[in-house]
Amino acid sequence: MQRTSFAGMDCPIARSLDALGEWWSLLILRDAFLGLTRFDEFQQSLGIAPNMLTRRLKRLTEAGLLERHVYSQRPLRHEYRLTAAGRDVFPVLAALGAWGGRHATGGKVLVQVAGRVDGQPMDPILIDRRSGTPITPETAEFRLGPDARPAYRERLAGILDRRNSRDGNVPA
Amino acid sequence: MQRTSFAGMDCPIARSLDALGEWWSLLILRDAFLGLTRFDEFQQSLGIAPNMLTRRLKRLTEAGLLERHVYSQRPLRHEYRLTAAGRDVFPVLAALGAWGGRHATGGKVLVQVAGRVDGQPMDPILIDRRSGTPITPETAEFRLGPDARPAYRERLAGILDRRNSRDGNVPA
Repeated sequence: MQRTSFAGMDCPIARSLDALGEWWSLLILRDAFLGLTRFDEFQQSLGIAPNMLTRRLKRLTEAGLLERHVYSQRPLRHEYRLTAAGRDVFPVLAALGAWGGRHATGGKVLVQVAGRVDGQPMDPILIDRRSGTPITPETAEFRLGPDARPAYRERLAGILDRRNSRDGNVPA
Repeated sequence: MQRTSFAGMDCPIARSLDALGEWWSLLILRDAFLGLTRFDEFQQSLGIAPNMLTRRLKRLTEAGLLERHVYSQRPLRHEYRLTAAGRDVFPVLAALGAWGGRHATGGKVLVQVAGRVDGQPMDPILIDRRSGTPITPETAEFRLGPDARPAYRERLAGILDRRNSRDGNVPA
């Protein structure tokens, strides 16, 4: 059996998780969207150990999600700003926040996504840009794309074939 | 300075991250959406150590994201099915996958979200259910909601006030 993991190799979800690093990284990005940019601001907001914060900021910078800018020469100090790739994480955080609001905060509205112009709370739903169809497990599914590696494709196909034959389904 | 963390206390993103556990948990949920339900299927797909998989399945079950069902009495065997709360994680995974597809897989389409009916690839975007406005950092922001604790509110307000006065902005 091949040791390389389905998870680690070819899945954009797994790759995203690799790039984002750890939970702390998502919370740092959340704070960046709240407007924080400086080490001491992140530290104060998150209550995270300084060496851990240093590591996470470095990783987010290396992964191209944050950019470091000098804001003081003496003493030398940097601030961290979201890159375009970092700003693109917003829907992930909004989707996580929406899930948490429904299932993990007992119905309490602790943080919400609101419109910048009218300040009204927004209720995030995911749709297909082309058709406008809401994307839910009922309407949509994950599929291997054209660039999935053969080994990865075979592995998944094997698992699903065994399922189908066990359940008496005809494989598609 | 208060030791309780802004991150851990009142933020639905942080609460979601707590409930979901670790990266492995999201990959297990991804596999559940692909149709896998059994221990050996998850193990084969993920290449994860059995004790780690046992721990993650237990945590996902306790968090109410998966439900255990007996599928064999002799020997006793369980399968794991998504609950309603688990199915609600779909948009989070789709948003993560969309981000990975844009920024972490070099433009290759390794896995995609496709419509169940027409099989066409979907391009997930997040919109506000009410107004239809796309939710991006340009149109939307995170705000404290009515149920945020006072200590949490003051802490964030303090950080943002210091930012604003430093930058010469008038606090809102």
